[in-house]
Formats: sequence, C-alpha cells, structure tokens
Amino acid sequence: MTRHFLTTLDWSVEEVRDLVDRALRIKRGTDRPSLAGRILGLMFFNPSVRTRVSCESAIARLGGAAIAVSPGSETWSFEHEDGAVMDGATQEHVRELAPVLSRYCHAIGIRKSELITTAATTARVTASWPELRRDAFLRKFAERATVPVINLESNAFHPCQGLADMATMVEKLGDPRGKKYVLTWAWHPKSLPVATPHSQLLAACDLGMDVTLLRPPRYELDPEVTAAAKRRAEEAGGSLRETDDVETAYRGARIVTAKSWGSLAYYGRFDQEARDKQGLRAGWIVDEAKLAKTADAWFMHCLPVRRNVVVTDGVLDGPRSIVVDEAENRLWTAAAVLCALLG
Amino acid sequence: MTRHFLTTLDWSVEEVRDLVDRALRIKRGTDRPSLAGRILGLMFFNPSVRTRVSCESAIARLGGAAIAVSPGSETWSFEHEDGAVMDGATQEHVRELAPVLSRYCHAIGIRKSELITTAATTARVTASWPELRRDAFLRKFAERATVPVINLESNAFHPCQGLADMATMVEKLGDPRGKKYVLTWAWHPKSLPVATPHSQLLAACDLGMDVTLLRPPRYELDPEVTAAAKRRAEEAGGSLRETDDVETAYRGARIVTAKSWGSLAYYGRFDQEARDKQGLRAGWIVDEAKLAKTADAWFMHCLPVRRNVVVTDGVLDGPRSIVVDEAENRLWTAAAVLCALLG
Amino acid sequence: MTRHFLTTLDWSVEEVRDLVDRALRIKRGTDRPSLAGRILGLMFFNPSVRTRVSCESAIARLGGAAIAVSPGSETWSFEHEDGAVMDGATQEHVRELAPVLSRYCHAIGIRKSELITTAATTARVTASWPELRRDAFLRKFAERATVPVINLESNAFHPCQGLADMATMVEKLGDPRGKKYVLTWAWHPKSLPVATPHSQLLAACDLGMDVTLLRPPRYELDPEVTAAAKRRAEEAGGSLRETDDVETAYRGARIVTAKSWGSLAYYGRFDQEARDKQGLRAGWIVDEAKLAKTADAWFMHCLPVRRNVVVTDGVLDGPRSIVVDEAENRLWTAAAVLCALLG
Repeated sequence: MTRHFLTTLDWSVEEVRDLVDRALRIKRGTDRPSLAGRILGLMFFNPSVRTRVSCESAIARLGGAAIAVSPGSETWSFEHEDGAVMDGATQEHVRELAPVLSRYCHAIGIRKSELITTAATTARVTASWPELRRDAFLRKFAERATVPVINLESNAFHPCQGLADMATMVEKLGDPRGKKYVLTWAWHPKSLPVATPHSQLLAACDLGMDVTLLRPPRYELDPEVTAAAKRRAEEAGGSLRETDDVETAYRGARIVTAKSWGSLAYYGRFDQEARDKQGLRAGWIVDEAKLAKTADAWFMHCLPVRRNVVVTDGVLDGPRSIVVDEAENRLWTAAAVLCALLG
Repeated sequence: MTRHFLTTLDWSVEEVRDLVDRALRIKRGTDRPSLAGRILGLMFFNPSVRTRVSCESAIARLGGAAIAVSPGSETWSFEHEDGAVMDGATQEHVRELAPVLSRYCHAIGIRKSELITTAATTARVTASWPELRRDAFLRKFAERATVPVINLESNAFHPCQGLADMATMVEKLGDPRGKKYVLTWAWHPKSLPVATPHSQLLAACDLGMDVTLLRPPRYELDPEVTAAAKRRAEEAGGSLRETDDVETAYRGARIVTAKSWGSLAYYGRFDQEARDKQGLRAGWIVDEAKLAKTADAWFMHCLPVRRNVVVTDGVLDGPRSIVVDEAENRLWTAAAVLCALLG
Repeated sequence: MTRHFLTTLDWSVEEVRDLVDRALRIKRGTDRPSLAGRILGLMFFNPSVRTRVSCESAIARLGGAAIAVSPGSETWSFEHEDGAVMDGATQEHVRELAPVLSRYCHAIGIRKSELITTAATTARVTASWPELRRDAFLRKFAERATVPVINLESNAFHPCQGLADMATMVEKLGDPRGKKYVLTWAWHPKSLPVATPHSQLLAACDLGMDVTLLRPPRYELDPEVTAAAKRRAEEAGGSLRETDDVETAYRGARIVTAKSWGSLAYYGRFDQEARDKQGLRAGWIVDEAKLAKTADAWFMHCLPVRRNVVVTDGVLDGPRSIVVDEAENRLWTAAAVLCALLG
C-alpha cells in the first residue's frame, strides 16, 4: 500500500512532528539525505510560486530532478468520474494518468484547487463545498497511483504549508507546547480557499499550542477539520478555541498568523459575500496596534500577501515578521516529505 | 552527417529492433548507459503528457538534463520557408533556430502536428494532406540542425510510440513473428492525426507479425506508408492485409491495438466527416465481446484514450489490458533512442 | 552587499573583460568550474529562446539545475510600488518575492521588458521612456534579493548579449582594440526595445574598438548610455562616433552588427513612427553591396532576425555571417557570469 501525503490528518501527530524535525536537521546540515536519480513529477492546475520553486529546489538539492507539467494548455483535459462515457471535453482518465505517471516518476505532487486563481475576481464554482471538499481528482489519482502522491494544495488541505509553519514555530519558540497561537481571518477582495487555514490550524494544534481561531461570525472553517484539529491539540497537550472578539484574542499571543478565506456559508455566492463583508475590512487587518497587544508575537503569513489589506507594511517590514523564514521552510519541509516518502 | 530519428522508415528493420532490444536491456538494468552532462532540448508545439514526461524522465535518469520550451507564448513565431521576406507574423527562421539550439543542446526533440489539439473540436487546417505529410518544419529543422533531432510526433509519424509498442509486444509475446496483430480504427468525436497509427502499423510490421489493418471504407492510412509497411512486414517474415470486416478480423489475434484517426479522404472537411461517421460509433468500439473472439489477445492503446467511446471500461480495466505497460515503455525506448543518437 | 549583474555599467571595463576571458576558457575546456548543487531561478516575463535555453544549459552543464517560472499564467501578479494598498489586481509584492526566491535559489535571472512581444504589432506602453528606463521592477527585486540577480533583458539593458558579442569579437579578431565596429540600425515592422543595442554598443566600447553608431536621424540611443559608452571606449583606447551616413560608415569595418530599435523620440507613438519610418526600409537593410564596402567585416546579429528585412539571405547565409557563433557564446558567457556570481 503506497503511502501518500494528502493531509497531515492521515499521519499521526508523532509522524508529523518527525517530518518537521527531519526538515530542521536537513536545514542545519546534520542530515544529508540523497535522492539521486529520483524523479518528482509536478502537476500544477493552479498558479504557484513558493510551492513549485521550493519543490523543484528540494528535489534538485537532493540530487534528483523535477518534471513540472502545467495541465491545460500543455496537456489533455482530465476525467475522474468512474464509468464516464468520454465523448465530451475530457480526453484522459485519471485511471490511466495516475498509473502511467507512476511509471515515469518516483513521486508526484499535485496542486488542484477549484478556487485558486490569478484573476482579479474569484473563480466561478458550480460544485458545492460538500462536493469540493472531497478533493475527488486528487483522491482518485492517489488511489490509482503506484508511487507516493503529495498534495500541493487541494480544496481542503495544504499540508506542505502546515509543515513549514510548524518548522518555523519550532525554530522561533523552541518547544511551542502550551504557547498561545492566533490564526486570524483578514479581509481580502476575493473569497480565498480554506485549504491553507485548515492546514495551518492543524499545524499549531499538532504542536500542542493553545490555539485561538479568530474569525468573524459565519467564517468558521470546515467543522470536521476543526473537530479533528481540536482532538489533535488535546492529544498533544494543547487546546483549540474559536472567537470573533478581535480585542481580546491577540492578548498573550506568541504567534499571530494572518489568513483570509471565503465563508463556507456563502460558498459560491461570492458577489453577495463581497458586499456583506465590506464592513470587516477596517477591523480585521493585522496592524501594529493589534500586534502590540500580544506577548511580542511573531507574525506569520503563508504568502502571497496583499500588503495594507491583510496586514500593514509596518508589521510585514517590522522586526517580528518571519514570513520569509516561514517561506524558506517550505523548502526544507518539502525535502523531508520527499525523503520520508522515497527514502 | 548527423543521424536523426524522424521516422522508423529512415532506419532499417534491424536497426529498429536493436533499439527495442536496447530499451528492454536498459529497463531490466542489464545495460546501464550514462548521458551525464548531456542536454536534451524539447519543443512541444502541441500538448503532451507521456511524450514529454517520458523524455524528461529518460534523460534525467541517464544523468543528463532536459530543457523544455513551449513555442508560442514562451518563444517567437517561427518561419521555415526559404527566401521568406519576414515582415509579417514570423520572427525567427528555422535556419537560425536549428543551428543555435544545436549549440546549446546535444539532441533536440520536437512535437509539431497541425492536428493535435486539446480543444473539444478538431483543429482548422488549411493545408492539404499532401502538403502536411511533408512535415516541412521538422524536416527543415533537421536539415539545419547539427545535433540529432527526434520526432516526438509530426503530422506523418510518431516513431517513439512505435518503438514503445514494439518493446511491449516483445515483452508479452516473446518472438512476435508470425503472430496475429490487429490495428483497429475506432470512432472518436474528433478527426485525429494519422501519425500514431502510421508508426504503430510500422511497429507490428517491423516485428514480422501477421498484421491486419481493420478500418471502415475511406479510412485507409496514407498509401505510401501502408506500402512501406507491407514491404517491411514481408522482409521481416510477416504480412499486412487490410479489411473492413469487424466480425472476422479479431479471430486469432494475439494483439489488438485500438486507435482512432481522421479520414484522409475527408481531410479538412471535419464537420462533414463527423456527420458521416456517426453510424460507425456503435460497431467499432473495442468491447469484451470482440476481444472474446481473439486468441486471448492483449489490448493496447497509445493513450490518452476516451473510455467507453474507443474502448469499454471492461476491456481497459480487464486482465488483458497492457496500456500502462505500453506507456511505461515510452520511457525505456526514449532512453534507447537517446543513447543510440548520443552515446 | 550582494553583487548583481544588471548592466555591464555596474562593472569596470576590466571586470567585464575578465568575464569574457573566463567564458572563452570555459568554452575551450581550460577552465572547468563546477556549480554542483546550485539552483538558478529564472523568471521570464517575456518570450525567449536563446536566453532561456543558454542559461538552462549553462547551469546544467556546470552541475546545477534551473527552475524556470513563467510569470503570468503560472504565478501571481506582482507589485513593486512601495506603500501600495494591494486591493486591486496585484497579488504579491517584490518585497516578499525577492527574498523568498533568494531562499530557494542561489541566483535569479529575470527578463522583464515592457516592449518585447510575440505579437505582430508593438506592445502598447503607457509609461514614458524616462520612467521605463529605470527598470523599476528589476531594481526593486535586486534591492530585496539576498542572492545575485542577473538581468536577462530589461527595458534598458541586455548585458548577457553584450558579453556574448564581446566573446565572439575576441574570438574572431584576436585583440579587437582600435578595429572598426559598426552598429547599424535597420528597418523592422515593429518598434523594438533599445536594451540590446545599448548593451551591444557598450560591448564594442569596452573592447576599445573604434565604434560607429550608424542610425537615421531621431534614432539616437539613450543619451546617458551613449555618453557612458563613449567614456568607456576612450578609457579602453577606442572611440565612439555617431552618424546617419550609410554610404561612408561601412568603409573599413571589421564588424557590422545589425539591430533594429524604436525611436525614443517617438516613444509610445508607435503607429506614427511606423508611418514615418517607411522610407527607411530600402536604404538601411544590410545587404551584400554594403558589406562589400567593409574590410571583409564579420556580420553579427543578436537573433532572432527577420530575414530579408533587417539583413538579406545573402549576408546571413554567406561566409562572413557569425550569428550562430555569437548565439553559441550566450552559453559560455552565461556560464562565466554564473561562476563569477556564485563561484
């Protein structure tokens, strides 16, 4: 049975932490693994900077090679429904695609999200959230693949970002257990995916931190994910609570992570959401005043970040911003995942 | 004089078989060639999955590196007519492009077909088949290149697919000579190129098989290619016949290869062809009933394949389908071609 | 302080010549540097053939790996204005992009020109030349990068082309000092960027050649660049003069380099320029008659070149054309730059 890395929820808390520890050893140079001759296939259905470059850099530094394919203009249109009569737009079924790529590559990373776009406006989505959260293409691909599949961001999860956040917090805080972590929603012109905040929430919980999920009413994350995060936080000696009280949430925080996401309650009604959330813009931006209420918290963001919309220049350019270190750890955690899956 | 790999017809039957044998030795690990430091340039004017990933994987496994360029958005528009006064849309002539890339790369693979598209409808083609079959761009490029050029699918040929089919049949049948091979046309919503069936037909003929080309009236392949295939089949101890009798053709087959292609008789009149071929859909699909008439034949297809249009799920997911093995052999035959040209 | 390669003007004449000498030693194999394990990030905002393939080939031959990202469809939209409130089309600020890519890559090459297009017509440009010549994105990126940045063509300079031209002239002429070099403007349907002629002019001047800039009235290059080129020519024992007299300029030339560019006097009024320059087409093409007036000059062009528009087939295919050698030297000079910056 091939082991994949689709969400940290498929891995135990201890296994996830082992990945983080290995990433930091590789970064320090005390672990020097080799994946010479190994091929990492990459399929990006959506734009990417950090994910693609960190993955390609990781496999190259380990002695292997990446092959990045951009589905769409460079490939065929893919089908994943079982039993489909393929006389329409789709040209290749995942039932062939996954085993074939498995013969060429030793591992395959896939980014496939219905909601990531470069457009100024949010993607048009026809499927419902309960449908999209199944990550059907990725799951079908992984079922049929005979080599490890790495989720580089799906509708539901972005586990590589979660690992990088964990590594960064371990570096900055030593043992993060019991320290206060705030994941705060922020206003953004678009309705962004929830995959990253899901994986960021899980990251802090897996470290046993005292986690506060700070978001406006109707901006809850997926309830199954939140429940799993809470269980794992408690297993790891931490806690998870939710609040919409911006004033008190920052107090005592050692880490503030900002992220915008679209409301699942509005899912698909993005124009309506855009109108209704306008009042949230001013109050939810992360600025120096809010950060001053913390216990000298480090500021984190997965990037890309809209300056002076999600967070002010003052915070991003200030001494407590560790967003570049966080981004760098995408490289070392990608290396650790590749070694764990292929080593 | 630089040797290219533009069509297996430029290579003797014995040379082609040597390539296949070498591919299988590399696959088994009994031949471990190195192309360390060698650079393979790749230009894909059309979409690709297997061809691109297998070529990139092959050169990387051999210690070299691939550089894939997508002409169009990433490059200039290319001219290949001699004497052109280039004050229009084209910006770079093959007379410069080919020798320049030859200075950067040790071999260059090119996919350039006027008929491969990802669109739901067939490409609009203005040139006639007698014009397109000349593969003018590819031929001019090869003339001017000072390093080997590999055809990754042109209008007329897809020789790398042919080699992979040969390797797969040798693996499955031992000595394929005299065994019955059926290449059957199938219905498809679009008018697909004939390059792949041309090279598949040549593959079976070069192995000395008893080859049946099964296609409806007006779906003959290019007569020069069929004639060459027949000559090579006979030279290799086999035979080639054509028929439109679906009922009898399958009998005794050891290999059934399905492929759709557009009628050369209709060339360019794709809407007319689409209307006229509707009646062929039901009768030409490869299904379990047809396969039951064979001598327990293996089922092959070059992929991508439209499920339940060209072939049923039952056949593709059944025990006699070897389409994934066939696709894998794209990797090992690409390695053999690279070694033969660069070694 | 990280050293970049944004224009040869940031490097002394002696340093530039050292790069050229090293390139020629690497080409001859008397210098065999290694950049094993080093990662070169490449961002092409514009199309490219020679630049991209030569850079990728160079790093691969040196043992490293390239990661090429095509901004636009594959990435986010980038912002470079300080203090921007990013609630519009841009998604990622250079203030994050540059330091983050610096953590993944050991050097980063960027092509970003507002005027390079594959379209048949010239790009629409809203900014003025005084604004565009600042190369704001590239400069901001380099300011924020913590690894060397290589200019792969900006609005103002194309220093890698300059180096390749220098290496080619050293190869063909031995010591080029005091030998006559003509950079001639030619007619072209579009208004092309001045970056390449700027760097080509600097190349000949840095070699101490007797340089003639031959262009019609109103086709002066940027006056600051021309002044700097003149200073450097004199420092190196050469000279620089400008003329619009086609009849006399070719006499005695040892090198003729052809290049078209748009008039800075017309900047942005491309339709007007196209009308006004029609009369220049016939008289400015480089043909065999003009070349016959030289002292058996070598013909150079950066490529791509429009045949029978900028230069005739007779010249390009003749014995004095060294455009392919010039293009090849993009590879060896790229290798030298990488070694100088990373070695």
